[in-house]
Parts: sequence; C-alpha cells; structure tokens
Amino acid sequence: VQALLARERRALSRAITVVENRERGFADLLAAVYPRTGSAFRVGITGPPGAGKSTLVDGLAAHWSAQGQRVGIIAVDPTSPFSGGALLGDRVRMGDLSALPDVYIRSMATRGSSGGVAAATRDVSMVMDAFGFDWLLIETVGVGQIEIEVMNICDSVTVVFVPESGDGVQALKAGLIEIAHVYVVNKADRPGAEQLATELGQAVAAKRDRERWNYPVITSEAVHRKGVTELAGELERHRAFLGTAERLPRVRREQALKDLENILRERVHTYLLQERDGWLDELSGRIASGNLDPHRAADLVWQRLLAREGTPTSRSD
Amino acid sequence: VQALLARERRALSRAITVVENRERGFADLLAAVYPRTGSAFRVGITGPPGAGKSTLVDGLAAHWSAQGQRVGIIAVDPTSPFSGGALLGDRVRMGDLSALPDVYIRSMATRGSSGGVAAATRDVSMVMDAFGFDWLLIETVGVGQIEIEVMNICDSVTVVFVPESGDGVQALKAGLIEIAHVYVVNKADRPGAEQLATELGQAVAAKRDRERWNYPVITSEAVHRKGVTELAGELERHRAFLGTAERLPRVRREQALKDLENILRERVHTYLLQERDGWLDELSGRIASGNLDPHRAADLVWQRLLAREGTPTSRSD
Repeated sequence: VQALLARERRALSRAITVVENRERGFADLLAAVYPRTGSAFRVGITGPPGAGKSTLVDGLAAHWSAQGQRVGIIAVDPTSPFSGGALLGDRVRMGDLSALPDVYIRSMATRGSSGGVAAATRDVSMVMDAFGFDWLLIETVGVGQIEIEVMNICDSVTVVFVPESGDGVQALKAGLIEIAHVYVVNKADRPGAEQLATELGQAVAAKRDRERWNYPVITSEAVHRKGVTELAGELERHRAFLGTAERLPRVRREQALKDLENILRERVHTYLLQERDGWLDELSGRIASGNLDPHRAADLVWQRLLAREGTPTSRSD
Repeated sequence: VQALLARERRALSRAITVVENRERGFADLLAAVYPRTGSAFRVGITGPPGAGKSTLVDGLAAHWSAQGQRVGIIAVDPTSPFSGGALLGDRVRMGDLSALPDVYIRSMATRGSSGGVAAATRDVSMVMDAFGFDWLLIETVGVGQIEIEVMNICDSVTVVFVPESGDGVQALKAGLIEIAHVYVVNKADRPGAEQLATELGQAVAAKRDRERWNYPVITSEAVHRKGVTELAGELERHRAFLGTAERLPRVRREQALKDLENILRERVHTYLLQERDGWLDELSGRIASGNLDPHRAADLVWQRLLAREGTPTSRSD
C-alpha cells in the first residue's frame, strides 16, 4: 500500500492483480486505499465491437498525456464465460501507448458472473484512483448487460457507434442511448455517418429538454486523429458540469448502491460455486427431474445460507 | 392452472403475465405447473442486432407449424435498464405469425437485473412448456452477458451472424462461439458470407474434434426462406442428439443450477430496492464520501439480511 501510494508502478500492477483475482487480503488492501480515492474521473467508453473504441481511447490518452495529465486505461473484455480472456487488447495496443509517459493500461478478463465483473472493475479503478490518475478510461467490448453494469460505475459514459451500427431503432434497442452522456459516430468518412448523427441527436432531444446537460453528438475518424480533441473537450466539460452544484456526490452515491449489489451478487455466485459438488448437486438433480421447482429450491438454498456462520465471501482470507 | 393445462390461450397469456411480472401467487403457479414441464425443447436464438433473427425465428415457426407442431416464441428484449421495453417485436411481427395455427408469440421486457431477466424468461418458458408446446424459440436482441445468461437456460443455442458482423476475431470476442451449437450466416447473398462461414468452421474445429456434436455452420437468406428448412433440420438433429445417451438430463441439471443462481440474484436485487430509501441510503452516502469501503458495507448488508426473518423474495404474497 505504501509503495502504491508512492506511485511505484510495480506496486500498482501487483495491487491490481490482487484485487482483480480476489487474492488473499484484497479486501484489506481496498479498505486501506479507499480513503485516498475520489479524485480520478471515471469515463466509460462502450459501443458495438469494431466501432473503434480502442483507437479513440488511445487518442484520448495521448491527448491528455501531452498535457501532463495521468491517464489510466482499464480494458474490460467480456470474452467467454468459459475460458476467460482479455489478452488481445494488451498485445495489439501496448506498442502505441507504452511510449507515453503517465499512461497505464490494464486489461481485465471476466469471470462469468456479471456482478463480479462490474465489482472487480470498480475495485481496480479504486486502486488506480488511489495511485493518482487524473482520468480513468474504462473501455468495454460489446453492448450487453455486463457493459451497462460496468458503465453504471463510471462518472461519465461515452458510447461509440459507426455508420454500420444499423438504423436508429436498433441503436435504441441496444439500450445504450439512455446511459450515455456523450455520443460518438466514429469512422465518419463512411456513408451514413451524418444520418446516424442526426438520428442520435433526435433520440436524445427529449433528454436535452429535461436535463441541463446537452448530450453532445460528435463525429470522428479516430484512426486519423479527427474528433479526438473535440471528444476530450466534451469530457472535460462533462466533468466540470458534474463538479458543479453537488452533482458528482449524487452520482457517486448511485454508484455505491450499484457497487454494493454487484458485491452481494458476486458472493452468492461464489457460495454456489463452493457448494456445487455437494448438496447442491442433489438439489439440482431434483429440479431437473421436475420433483422440485426452482423457487422452492431457492428458498432451501437461502435457508442454508442463513444458517451458515459468517458471511459468504469471495475472499480467500 | 386448470385452464392453462387445458390449453386455453387466454389462460396462457394470463399465466405468463403473472409469472413475468412476479405478481402475487406466481411461485405457487410455477410450483403447480412444474411437474407438467419437460417435454418442450428450448432453442435459444441470439446474435447481433440486425442479423435477421426474428425473420429466421418466424421461418422456423412457419416450418414446424406446417408440420402440425406447436411452436411458442419468447422474444427477450434487453432494452433499456430504465424504461423497460420489448414492445417493438410484437408490433412488427404479429401480422405474419398470427395467421399460423399453433404458434404463440410473446415479448418480454427486461427489468434491469440480468439474473432477474434470465429467471423470468426461464419461468415463462416453463409455463409455455406445461401448456404443451413442442418447440420453444427464445430469441434475444444483442450479444451481451444477459443474452448469454438467457441462452444458458436453453437446451440448444443457435447464433446468427451476418457478413457485416465483422471479422472472426470480433465474433470470438463476443463470446458467442462457445455457447452455440448451431451457427447461421444469414443474408448470405452479401459479400463476405462464405468467408465468415469458413472462419466460423475453423473456430469450432477444436470443439468438433473434442465432442460428438459437429457444430454445423449454415448459410441462409431468411427473407427469401432459404436455409430455414436446413436450420430446422439441424435443430431436430441436435434435439435427437441430446435425447440419446442421457445427455438432456445432464444439460437440464446445469440449467437448474444457473436458474437457482438467477433467482437468488433476483432476490438480492429486490431486497436492495426495498431498502434503498431507508438505512441503505445512509450507507451509500458513507461509501460515496470515502468513509466506508463497499466490501465492508456489503458485510453490514449481509448481516442485516441474516437478522431478517424469512427470506427476501420478489413475491408480493
């Protein structure tokens, strides 16, 4: 913890590993760094695969790094629920970013439980926050529930589309419109970019009327570095917006609630994993054969959980 | 329940509504129908938005309906975590399918908790199973964690891509390859279809070697009814495959475990919702201000849960 707070990179990497993998003592580590958190601003970047999120994130990191600001990147890769993953990101990208001072990138693999992923991402971001980053860019692959849960622990959410993302209705259905504060239409040299930007503007019109934030829609060509400065500007503006009128404490209170739920869900998941070769195996057999319905079975599991001493926990200490 | 088992459609619609919305008595209803379940085969259909899943599902329904089989369709729409949704599907499609005998379609809105969605989808499928459908087609929008959770409660999973879905790496990253039993490259008249089919075939080669199922890759043009008969054939073949050598009971045992976890997660979610305006509000304030770390806070919540009489439940009875 001392080395971490003294900004030693190796201590940071080690602390992140401890927290991400829920190694022995991770909760104590988090409790120790927690009072030092709160100064980093968490920007979530999400959107469909292939939208160019990584390129945009790299562009933002280069932009802020050039201004002497510290940027941490967390690439959350909801790969397979079976194999775990998240290796690709590092390999493809480290070349570009490793040359930049004060930029740190870390990929995170998922571990099958969506609450667990969001909780672990949040915890890793807390460690990086305590280390002293000015900006934390939290990038996800894909557009599903797990990404929405990860976005829910961010202060500001940017969603990246490409003209090929499909028509406005499909974009709306993906549920991204309602969680985002800034919209990017990337690869804007392709046909349909202007139309998509217009559609997105229409889709957020009601929110603009209702709230004081204007939900900007930016067009970009991240590979040609076009639009990156503009996006950075909008993110700085959103940070300033939240910083006024006590908005940020309210946002972080909501995040705390989400965080609590994610941790509790992670504990239930871990408990079931622990018991699955024992009595739970017999119980699932009874459900599968139609002798017991799952809601009654859940009552039984819950009673066992209550009867247990202490709390179920994912800690190994 | 009597009217449901007597195959009255109005009783079916009513029972689904009770179960989906967790209305008073839903658990009793499920317990009553549960012993009558087990004969329907659940096919999950997933893939990125715009891949043509609905058209394929409609084609399958028409195909089996023409053979005198009963087909139930559940369209799970992971729309917004805020507004709920799932209305679009019905409106766009009911025209085509309402003319078919023995086909029933139902859209389901999500309610923000991913465990809750999968649990509710599973429960609705149980009601439809008891009603007497031969096939249940469970269709999702999108490719995220929530869809994977919904697919985990299906007997067989088909994933639908289009040539535009992006290169093979992106498809792999979406985590779909590992949960699917049948692959479809739809809109196969577009450029890149053959290449994507080849890539998918290569991606599943290792699984083919390891397991006895051959993970077929089908090309289709659903709007022109091409490939639908072939897909139906592969699904019948997969159903027969699982029916031999006691494979299906094992699959359903796994589903029962997932189901249990989803129900428990749903209960945690409901409990937190109930308490959020009370003591939980004070707790989240302490977390947000850095005075309490979330893992310690989770311990406190858990202790309160333990001290509580009875089980937290989403039932209103």
